[in-house]
Amino acid sequence: MNHFVSANDVNSIQLLVNQALAYKSNPFADAQLGKGKRIGLLFLNPSLRTRLSTQVAASNLGMEAIVFNVDKEGWALEFEEGVIMNGNTVEHIKDAAPVLGQYFDILAIRTFPSLKNKDVDYSEQLMHQFIKYAGVPIVSLESATLHPLQSLTDIITIQESLLANPIQHKKPKVVLTWAPHIKPLPQCVANSFAQWVNAWGEADFVVTHPKGYELSETYTKGATIQYDQAAALENADFVYVKNWSSFHAYGQMLSHDEAWMLTQQTMMQTNQAKLMHCLPVRRNVELSDELLDGSNSLVTRQAGNRVWAAQAVLANILHQQKQLI
Amino acid sequence: MNHFVSANDVNSIQLLVNQALAYKSNPFADAQLGKGKRIGLLFLNPSLRTRLSTQVAASNLGMEAIVFNVDKEGWALEFEEGVIMNGNTVEHIKDAAPVLGQYFDILAIRTFPSLKNKDVDYSEQLMHQFIKYAGVPIVSLESATLHPLQSLTDIITIQESLLANPIQHKKPKVVLTWAPHIKPLPQCVANSFAQWVNAWGEADFVVTHPKGYELSETYTKGATIQYDQAAALENADFVYVKNWSSFHAYGQMLSHDEAWMLTQQTMMQTNQAKLMHCLPVRRNVELSDELLDGSNSLVTRQAGNRVWAAQAVLANILHQQKQLI
Amino acid sequence: MNHFVSANDVNSIQLLVNQALAYKSNPFADAQLGKGKRIGLLFLNPSLRTRLSTQVAASNLGMEAIVFNVDKEGWALEFEEGVIMNGNTVEHIKDAAPVLGQYFDILAIRTFPSLKNKDVDYSEQLMHQFIKYAGVPIVSLESATLHPLQSLTDIITIQESLLANPIQHKKPKVVLTWAPHIKPLPQCVANSFAQWVNAWGEADFVVTHPKGYELSETYTKGATIQYDQAAALENADFVYVKNWSSFHAYGQMLSHDEAWMLTQQTMMQTNQAKLMHCLPVRRNVELSDELLDGSNSLVTRQAGNRVWAAQAVLANILHQQKQLI
Repeated sequence: MNHFVSANDVNSIQLLVNQALAYKSNPFADAQLGKGKRIGLLFLNPSLRTRLSTQVAASNLGMEAIVFNVDKEGWALEFEEGVIMNGNTVEHIKDAAPVLGQYFDILAIRTFPSLKNKDVDYSEQLMHQFIKYAGVPIVSLESATLHPLQSLTDIITIQESLLANPIQHKKPKVVLTWAPHIKPLPQCVANSFAQWVNAWGEADFVVTHPKGYELSETYTKGATIQYDQAAALENADFVYVKNWSSFHAYGQMLSHDEAWMLTQQTMMQTNQAKLMHCLPVRRNVELSDELLDGSNSLVTRQAGNRVWAAQAVLANILHQQKQLI
Repeated sequence: MNHFVSANDVNSIQLLVNQALAYKSNPFADAQLGKGKRIGLLFLNPSLRTRLSTQVAASNLGMEAIVFNVDKEGWALEFEEGVIMNGNTVEHIKDAAPVLGQYFDILAIRTFPSLKNKDVDYSEQLMHQFIKYAGVPIVSLESATLHPLQSLTDIITIQESLLANPIQHKKPKVVLTWAPHIKPLPQCVANSFAQWVNAWGEADFVVTHPKGYELSETYTKGATIQYDQAAALENADFVYVKNWSSFHAYGQMLSHDEAWMLTQQTMMQTNQAKLMHCLPVRRNVELSDELLDGSNSLVTRQAGNRVWAAQAVLANILHQQKQLI
Repeated sequence: MNHFVSANDVNSIQLLVNQALAYKSNPFADAQLGKGKRIGLLFLNPSLRTRLSTQVAASNLGMEAIVFNVDKEGWALEFEEGVIMNGNTVEHIKDAAPVLGQYFDILAIRTFPSLKNKDVDYSEQLMHQFIKYAGVPIVSLESATLHPLQSLTDIITIQESLLANPIQHKKPKVVLTWAPHIKPLPQCVANSFAQWVNAWGEADFVVTHPKGYELSETYTKGATIQYDQAAALENADFVYVKNWSSFHAYGQMLSHDEAWMLTQQTMMQTNQAKLMHCLPVRRNVELSDELLDGSNSLVTRQAGNRVWAAQAVLANILHQQKQLI
């Protein structure tokens, strides 16, 4: 792959998943692949798992990772073309990106949406401008609308769970369910999970949420949309829990419906479903202690798998770079 | 050792001191010991010496150290069990710790006390929860009540000084004296120094402070408590200067008594005592320029020894991990 | 060289430029030179290019670079001698510098001027105190009045451009021109560029700015000062664009004269001059999009060359250290 900003950048999700699980068995299998290579990790927003797992993944491949917190250590970047920069922005992406592209072999970038202007957020200006101007592969560490390293991890975790506990029916039933939260969150994780599960094609995929929380069809097309959570959960093998704000009434919280928080009772209707969440999770708001601490929770394992997802992606890009030389 | 959060985690302080001094002579003696191992350095509070010396120590052992400023780069952690997380905390330690434990072979953590609630501070909730949930060895980079890497350094520095300048009498007289400050500070360094000197057992140990500044007997038991600084200093070989806020009137400054700041005059009563302080020091508030810049000051050497203390501790944990495999 | 804080620390600028261009051809030529050595990068002010290029340079030499953001991760330092530290400063440079000097083989430091007190800023207290107290080589990552790594980069970029496109006349005409800005900036880059071009001696050097923006003669002596920008630009081969605040009316903005922003029209008078700027640049305030995006702009290449400048300087210091052993 040249860049990694969405599922569309991946030829075969299954091959990438297999590679990730191979690295999990043998973390240092390609410890020389990244020798003499550098990845810059640029954060315009905070990150714990994504940052640390990508650093560990790079290091497992023998690459040097350098973290730069643009929001704290740097200054405000400008993205508009032709603007007279007499305001708060100090440097244009057109100038910063090609410079960073000279310092690093790969650039990985984290940014969040404003949740104020749908068109701006969904234009993914930052990622596209880095791709346009940096001259090196760009890896998304979560963007305004997608979180591909998380979604790859999610598929890896489902696959790993299925390998350990095969199911009888042909395809696992995977349910993405909206959960309550105290403030409006991006649609990234949900969009991205939908995009990847659909692109993977190995699941019977259902998305459930209160009315008004419909995600962009760009990502959910192919999934069954259910407004009745109980019906959606029936015979589910995997339940992915996540809050998001409204896409159509952009960035708004339409409902605080606490009944959407899963409990052991509501989970009874599933096929002893495994529980997933990308973390951080607000306990007893999004998900109850009893479920998070229960034996069906995959959340810790899922977060651990972030390393192998990042390692598979970086290795793929490094191999691609070697072929081009 | 499994963890390193207090003197109680150490079998033999003397062996650890000897190991540290051996590393000082030969920093790269175990440059392969930490190969392929990673330590996460998590800071909930700022740090200069502790952070840098631990990074250097890890690197001397061939380990990779990754710094994460939880307070600045991350978000507020929750520590209470069973709480409904609808407030400011974003992630529970029960979720964060096991994830971090998957990314790192050792986790080192710095936190400070609130100085508002003695029970909360002295419960050392953060350290205990990391030990409970992370699944890897935990190293304290200073906690709410103790600072074991500092105290190990202090013993190393006393030992090193004694080797270079042996004393006639059997045991050196070591005095910990309270000093004035402009704001309330934790009791950590003082508690910890008392705990380590007592556990080491190789000193005649006196603690001196104004009334009301009595430390917890958990740590001072075995030391002589003196309210008369001049009497305490008599024939001292080492004087350790440190401010702390009241333990009993928790977190309060009871006295600004400037007379407690040592001077060349008051030091006349000592046995040409060496002067120690953990730094940072407020000059001419805690200690005078003349003493800090004088030939008996060990403070710079002491701060330099932080590297060897950290290196001995990390090496000990790495050896322990190898034995367990 | 022992330290690197101004052009005066360099015996032969030309040799340093040649070394830098050699590293550009072969980045890993001295990949073992810095083995087992550590450089501490201390930031009292933000930095993007300087920080990242120095990290990359150190790594190319096999050195470990550790970044410490003193302003964010540490605390306020005191520089005055003999002061009673009962205010906001937490640690004296006299205590911090020798400690840092024990942790690192080289210390590199970034600080900015206050622009409030000329005498204080031009005394370069911070750099001088680090040189005095740290006991290891000090590298400026930009100080209150100079930015030597930038200026070395600038000479490298001019040299590189001349090698690729030789000029007919004996010496290139190099013009440093003031440009408008929205807020008062330090004189560092301009001072330093003037100092280096003069010390290099291989250019016909002109400085142009509105009246009142005269730089210190300490640095400009030897250059032609022109108040007429158009006249200054005539037959220029290189035009270096930079804003600075007044040196004489210290730290003030005397003029917002937008006519000083270069355009394609004003550049017509030059000898198809190459355009330089240290970045970050406020587009369409300091320099127009058309010039920055035009084929004569060297700014991206110039920023890329920061790596080779830093690498040549660090290698020089490392060689010097080896000779001293």
